[in-house]
Amino acid sequence: MRYAVLGTGMVGRQLGGKLVELGHEVMMGSRGKDNPAALEWAREAGPRASTGTFAEAAEFGDAVIEAVGGQVARAALEAAGAERLAGKLVIDVSNPLEMTDGDVRLVVPEGQDSVGAQLQRAFPEARVVKTLNTLNASVMTDPALVPGEHQVFVSGDDAAAKREAVELLGSFGWPAERVIDLGGIESARAVELMMPLWLTLFRKHGDAMFNWQIQRASS
Amino acid sequence: MRYAVLGTGMVGRQLGGKLVELGHEVMMGSRGKDNPAALEWAREAGPRASTGTFAEAAEFGDAVIEAVGGQVARAALEAAGAERLAGKLVIDVSNPLEMTDGDVRLVVPEGQDSVGAQLQRAFPEARVVKTLNTLNASVMTDPALVPGEHQVFVSGDDAAAKREAVELLGSFGWPAERVIDLGGIESARAVELMMPLWLTLFRKHGDAMFNWQIQRASS
Repeated sequence: MRYAVLGTGMVGRQLGGKLVELGHEVMMGSRGKDNPAALEWAREAGPRASTGTFAEAAEFGDAVIEAVGGQVARAALEAAGAERLAGKLVIDVSNPLEMTDGDVRLVVPEGQDSVGAQLQRAFPEARVVKTLNTLNASVMTDPALVPGEHQVFVSGDDAAAKREAVELLGSFGWPAERVIDLGGIESARAVELMMPLWLTLFRKHGDAMFNWQIQRASS
Repeated sequence: MRYAVLGTGMVGRQLGGKLVELGHEVMMGSRGKDNPAALEWAREAGPRASTGTFAEAAEFGDAVIEAVGGQVARAALEAAGAERLAGKLVIDVSNPLEMTDGDVRLVVPEGQDSVGAQLQRAFPEARVVKTLNTLNASVMTDPALVPGEHQVFVSGDDAAAKREAVELLGSFGWPAERVIDLGGIESARAVELMMPLWLTLFRKHGDAMFNWQIQRASS
């Protein structure tokens, strides 16, 4: 399959690299054409990896992984172009973080809103699924790095898109029973709001190699 | 020991009942003197249980458990009286929830604030510890109801108060290694923001018998 990965940060490079490793063709999109991080990523990832603008990547991909910061996610998808997202699975991995006084903090969308829901509203023909925003990049594509039956979440309005996302997560190493379907895209708020606890634990632990496991009395 | 439990809801009754069971004397405080829920609780809990106003309970307790809704927590502590809280461990179990269209939702304090931090600022001589707001009342006092090594969190500025809280949690059945110290009271925000995911899972599961476990690669 052909994937667009929007964003050249740690998450984009990690997901893009894993997708190439799995045999997919991946174009990493960035604002400018010759983003150094994207070029280096493509050189290391090999012949199935390429780079382009947000629009070129979105045009190329059968599915799109949006892995820029939550604060600029909408701008990245606008640059990609609504017509190039229409009908496609758009995975939103973002968290609306900001740096304040050298500290990383979550900017909580107003009311009951979330970046995931904002993107779905702004691009109604895209099939947005929020997932993978609750854990470290390396654990996203190698869950066995952390012991236990820890989990990931999916939120989205399009049931078929969520099935495609669950399949993709399966190829990353997440068995379907460890993917928790939270419901419609409005539930993206719940997972975005986990970021402050994630950041607090990250500072406390001094490492990012942890994840959540929901324990239940009955299942 | 003598405890004040402020609040007559499920959480207050559960914690008050457990404290009586453990041999403590407990006065349940409410706005009015003859709160029916408090009177019924005291009758069932037996001779070590009593009822009173917020102020009478705070006067009675060596430590105070604030188990009203987060939206009215400050008003309850004002009714209790700053002078009756001074120097005491004040455990804040609350979440700032509101009912909207028959739906329970978290009201997120502005900026990086939290109910826990607001209470500590409003009552600087109280030793506020945020804990137990991330799970169901019955699991608070009987963690074995849910399988696994799931955890609770403590946040607070006063190290001695947190030690007292950890000891209290130990008497409820939480071994110290399953109590995660998140740091100062500002970290109360991180645990209050878990409520939307808790509510989403509660609706999905149809029951409240679950809790979080942080899995780590190293410890």
